[in-house]
Amino acid sequence: MVSPVSLRAVDAPGQPTPSPELEELYRGFESELLVPLWTEIGDLMPTSPRPAAAAHVWRWQGLLRLAERAGDLVPVGRGGERRAIALANPGLGGAPYATPTLWAAIQYLNPREDAPVHRHTQNAFRFVVEGEGVWTVVDGDPVAMRRGDFLLTPGWRFHGHHNRADTPMAWLDGLDIPFAHMIGSGFFEPGPEAVPDRSAPSRSRAERLWAHPGLRPVSAPGPRPSSPIAAYRWEHTDAALADQLALEDEGHPGVLEAGHAAVRFSNPTTGGDVMPTMRAEMHRLRAGARTATRREVGSSVWQVFDGAGAVRVGEREWRVERGDLVAVPSWVPLAVTAESALDLFRFSDAPIFERLHADRVQVEPAG
Amino acid sequence: MVSPVSLRAVDAPGQPTPSPELEELYRGFESELLVPLWTEIGDLMPTSPRPAAAAHVWRWQGLLRLAERAGDLVPVGRGGERRAIALANPGLGGAPYATPTLWAAIQYLNPREDAPVHRHTQNAFRFVVEGEGVWTVVDGDPVAMRRGDFLLTPGWRFHGHHNRADTPMAWLDGLDIPFAHMIGSGFFEPGPEAVPDRSAPSRSRAERLWAHPGLRPVSAPGPRPSSPIAAYRWEHTDAALADQLALEDEGHPGVLEAGHAAVRFSNPTTGGDVMPTMRAEMHRLRAGARTATRREVGSSVWQVFDGAGAVRVGEREWRVERGDLVAVPSWVPLAVTAESALDLFRFSDAPIFERLHADRVQVEPAG
Amino acid sequence: MVSPVSLRAVDAPGQPTPSPELEELYRGFESELLVPLWTEIGDLMPTSPRPAAAAHVWRWQGLLRLAERAGDLVPVGRGGERRAIALANPGLGGAPYATPTLWAAIQYLNPREDAPVHRHTQNAFRFVVEGEGVWTVVDGDPVAMRRGDFLLTPGWRFHGHHNRADTPMAWLDGLDIPFAHMIGSGFFEPGPEAVPDRSAPSRSRAERLWAHPGLRPVSAPGPRPSSPIAAYRWEHTDAALADQLALEDEGHPGVLEAGHAAVRFSNPTTGGDVMPTMRAEMHRLRAGARTATRREVGSSVWQVFDGAGAVRVGEREWRVERGDLVAVPSWVPLAVTAESALDLFRFSDAPIFERLHADRVQVEPAG
Amino acid sequence: MVSPVSLRAVDAPGQPTPSPELEELYRGFESELLVPLWTEIGDLMPTSPRPAAAAHVWRWQGLLRLAERAGDLVPVGRGGERRAIALANPGLGGAPYATPTLWAAIQYLNPREDAPVHRHTQNAFRFVVEGEGVWTVVDGDPVAMRRGDFLLTPGWRFHGHHNRADTPMAWLDGLDIPFAHMIGSGFFEPGPEAVPDRSAPSRSRAERLWAHPGLRPVSAPGPRPSSPIAAYRWEHTDAALADQLALEDEGHPGVLEAGHAAVRFSNPTTGGDVMPTMRAEMHRLRAGARTATRREVGSSVWQVFDGAGAVRVGEREWRVERGDLVAVPSWVPLAVTAESALDLFRFSDAPIFERLHADRVQVEPAG
Repeated sequence: MVSPVSLRAVDAPGQPTPSPELEELYRGFESELLVPLWTEIGDLMPTSPRPAAAAHVWRWQGLLRLAERAGDLVPVGRGGERRAIALANPGLGGAPYATPTLWAAIQYLNPREDAPVHRHTQNAFRFVVEGEGVWTVVDGDPVAMRRGDFLLTPGWRFHGHHNRADTPMAWLDGLDIPFAHMIGSGFFEPGPEAVPDRSAPSRSRAERLWAHPGLRPVSAPGPRPSSPIAAYRWEHTDAALADQLALEDEGHPGVLEAGHAAVRFSNPTTGGDVMPTMRAEMHRLRAGARTATRREVGSSVWQVFDGAGAVRVGEREWRVERGDLVAVPSWVPLAVTAESALDLFRFSDAPIFERLHADRVQVEPAG
Repeated sequence: MVSPVSLRAVDAPGQPTPSPELEELYRGFESELLVPLWTEIGDLMPTSPRPAAAAHVWRWQGLLRLAERAGDLVPVGRGGERRAIALANPGLGGAPYATPTLWAAIQYLNPREDAPVHRHTQNAFRFVVEGEGVWTVVDGDPVAMRRGDFLLTPGWRFHGHHNRADTPMAWLDGLDIPFAHMIGSGFFEPGPEAVPDRSAPSRSRAERLWAHPGLRPVSAPGPRPSSPIAAYRWEHTDAALADQLALEDEGHPGVLEAGHAAVRFSNPTTGGDVMPTMRAEMHRLRAGARTATRREVGSSVWQVFDGAGAVRVGEREWRVERGDLVAVPSWVPLAVTAESALDLFRFSDAPIFERLHADRVQVEPAG
Repeated sequence: MVSPVSLRAVDAPGQPTPSPELEELYRGFESELLVPLWTEIGDLMPTSPRPAAAAHVWRWQGLLRLAERAGDLVPVGRGGERRAIALANPGLGGAPYATPTLWAAIQYLNPREDAPVHRHTQNAFRFVVEGEGVWTVVDGDPVAMRRGDFLLTPGWRFHGHHNRADTPMAWLDGLDIPFAHMIGSGFFEPGPEAVPDRSAPSRSRAERLWAHPGLRPVSAPGPRPSSPIAAYRWEHTDAALADQLALEDEGHPGVLEAGHAAVRFSNPTTGGDVMPTMRAEMHRLRAGARTATRREVGSSVWQVFDGAGAVRVGEREWRVERGDLVAVPSWVPLAVTAESALDLFRFSDAPIFERLHADRVQVEPAG
Repeated sequence: MVSPVSLRAVDAPGQPTPSPELEELYRGFESELLVPLWTEIGDLMPTSPRPAAAAHVWRWQGLLRLAERAGDLVPVGRGGERRAIALANPGLGGAPYATPTLWAAIQYLNPREDAPVHRHTQNAFRFVVEGEGVWTVVDGDPVAMRRGDFLLTPGWRFHGHHNRADTPMAWLDGLDIPFAHMIGSGFFEPGPEAVPDRSAPSRSRAERLWAHPGLRPVSAPGPRPSSPIAAYRWEHTDAALADQLALEDEGHPGVLEAGHAAVRFSNPTTGGDVMPTMRAEMHRLRAGARTATRREVGSSVWQVFDGAGAVRVGEREWRVERGDLVAVPSWVPLAVTAESALDLFRFSDAPIFERLHADRVQVEPAG
């Protein structure tokens, strides 16, 4: 953050020669709520992005332990709204931001527990690394949550959760809270305490209407800002990844690079990203595969879904396994190596950059 | 067609008074290759569309009988290219046009027979009302054809067919040949005699990459003019239609109108129609259901996939059953009544009108 | 046009061997309203477009003479609607079609004469090669017509004309009548006999709102299917062309090719063509300049605005001068040579092809 | 900014009961870099936007005085790059941000002085409230700057300025620096010290190609992310505003509301905003006119171009006159009253919100 508490004349290249007059000028700036460019430009306009956010890894086992403890001590209800615990990037001053634009949290629901209904303009999704038994009810439509599923709650839809099982359940929440907070676009409205439909179908109504490949209801033509598919089921994601690797085995195109299959969750009414501000993908690496080193403008969060491997982000490297979460800041190079077969969920703020023509990517192939 | 062989002065409202001078003027127009608006405007610019094409029904059993006979007498090979027999709308002067823009034909392949490879800018699809055993190989990718499947061959892709079965197979071909012919956009190029890949997978590579609901390969981002899904399988179409009717039973939205489910085949990279010039849909009516009377700018062809019912087009009505084909001209009202449960395939030129802002629809609800 | 009155078995390459059985089959096709592909494919699906329309030139002086004579003999009023005389392409069987998609006509109004108000879904424009004194009133907004102006009447806007001068006036009308007729999209509605506003401002209200460069009223955001600019004035077109040639003189880019400036009339709410089905451009060649030989899918009509030159279309070449009109069919190569400085107006159906992904262009640079 | 230095259990509605165990849990969160939602949600997800930025007014005379003093003390050159002094919103902790997304600065150039060439991905414009004599050279194209002109430097174009006059010149710079800084998208590259073309044409080459109403060069088709018009000249802006008020006098639509004309600077290749992240408009109020009270998601900065009036932002009201600048935070209601005839320049971050489907507007008509 650029916040000069006190502007001071310094003798440095590109800076005006310090003098009492200059100091007086700087005091004038301060009293008029002004800041010169020439003292700040290095921070404000670097040669390439120098994000305040840092690369960091959070361990799922650690998160889960604290979430379980919160399950004992913190009730879920109106006001606090959710038992969600957010990743706070070490470079962002303690704010609950995984990156400058993205929120990532573990949410935890005790057996038979409800999270009250509300809606907000912030876009949200859930990704389930393990467990089942919770239904999230989105605008009245109950959506089952199961391992591997990717579930959408686009902005301004009423939603609440209820756990129908005798076991607790935890999952990953992703939202654009930091971005909405920064630009000042967030609205919030509480709904009823209890979800309006406590039935527990295995498929939501939204899926029954929209999750047939290449088919859409004639009754609902036209594009929509967000995908109408409430849940992208693991069986489909898994099959799509397996198909890509099988095609590679047969000598046909499809994979992203050697040994690396990847699918993007998409909005069937536009072919674009699932929500206006967030991209979500699932990646599968063969055991031993190594991705290219890639950097892109924009930040992302990765979660290991299955297997183990090594993640290199800039100068740092971590070994990761099921559930571990990695924050990758803007323009920091990333490479992944798979120890075993490795499945990774990824979400990012790429749609923001693409829609504003600020996207840029640099790829250095795997050596 | 407006083609005044000889322009003649007539004494009629809105027309100039006949005189030798007027006759001389009209002869002057003719010798200079000119035609006045005032004698033609009634035909050229009617109050509402007055298509030359007529509503008409072709019977599948009759088509099939003639196709079988052609199977005995007409070889398939380079030059003739395909054993395809096209519907010739009675209003269009004998041209092989189902409507002014759409081609519809029965294609027939004997056991173990090949149709040679070629490509053309005309967009094409196949719809299978019965049978199986043929693979169409599109840009080297073998695509199985089975009852209920809808298969794409977008413009300029090399394609040939081969029948691997010991039984003949017939299906419906739909193309935009009349439209391309009229506007002068058609290119054609022959390919090899034999299809390049004679394997017989149950799913094409295109489906393995693209026919997962809401998922797309990260390796192929961006929109495409035509859908990359080579085959829309009946199992998915059937399930989508069944889901809509089940949702209706449960009191939820989704059907197009009471007792009438409908899905549109769509391009997953845009959410729009499968090809730039043609729309394709599958409709399912409950036994006894009756559609609204609907007219729209643009023409379409319907084929009964299963069941029986009555089709009213303008002032005419026909009872139809499996395989029967109906041509519906622009702006002629259409209503369908289902005798039994009734599945209908439909294709139309709607994308042309929507992209050119010439679409218009009028619906009169079922009485 | 493909219209086999009687299908006949012939002994030719790619055709089945003639036999009584084959003749019987062909009779069966006829009685069932069917046409085989194998006898028609050469005409229907040629290697490259083989348009029925021919290249042709109409002379302005000839048109004008006949229009003046029509001014004596043919009143303007309800029913006949307009004293417009259309180019009838010699390849299109006498229909009033300059090309398969485009209508081009000379329209003529006597001093103090009115053309009644009507509207139609066909898109229309006017281009003024000489004269002034007529106002066209579009949805109540009077639009002056003067030499060099390009004026729009997009589909479904009420419009009538009145000549306020003591001299007659003639101009070029361009519409998509043939296209609308073929696809069956035309609606027509008469309005009042007299135009609703007989004032004669030098600029229309539409221009006052919309014809400021890069500026649009905040009260009317969003895209529109057609340009809201009612008149593109010659002074602007002339200045834009002069600027391009001056930039070329100074060594900067801008011209289309050496000695050839060109501007496209555009819709300021989208940046695209002025209307969904028609493109319009103004071209200026320096004396002695020669264009590349260019062919493109789609047809166009050119009118000489000023100067003289030679136009080669396919194998034919004509010398042309002020007002002369040239029809260029699809995929026929075109090259223009300027004898003097040469200004050319052009309109085409290019937006149809681009929106339907059927556009194709081939350029062979000037030798 | 949400940055809990130390998380503390408090006894408050919606919060868990304080206890030693809860304190321990919170310490666990801190050590694992986690933050719970339930303690933060009120700040993070308010009912409606509660921007940290404050409404504020900066006086042009004060800015100018300090800029002149900086002209004496601070040289312009490589490193500091520009003699620009930015508005620092009192709610944003001293950062040089007029709003969370927008940078606004006064830039000042002494007689015969140069600002060195550089480029950056941040989008920039200049607006000239008074003076002339400077040319900004954008990708080699010299663009004159004069009172009332609005000038573009879209992202990643090399640009430098030089003052050819014997008088200093000051103007307003607007950029998306804060937004780019937050999301991490900024790249910067220095160019040569001196501008490459020191000529002083009254119109730039970009204007000669692009600033003709509704006309575009055929040599440069297709959309562009930013407007190619380098300068929107005051004569056009003034005429467009005058035309709207004249139309209002004549009883025709066009103005935004009674007595309030407004034009938006637009990209002629798309009809949209001039740059992907910023909107710019010019407003003109008749003496005595009063705008509706309007609030919208997103922030803006207004500058008085001419005249005097009163600006009410939320609960605060200021009298403003030529050059004064007003920051309007997200969702704070704004109303303007014109004392004299009043011209106002405005820029905002609206395109960000519209492209991300986060825009929302509420208008309460003038009482």
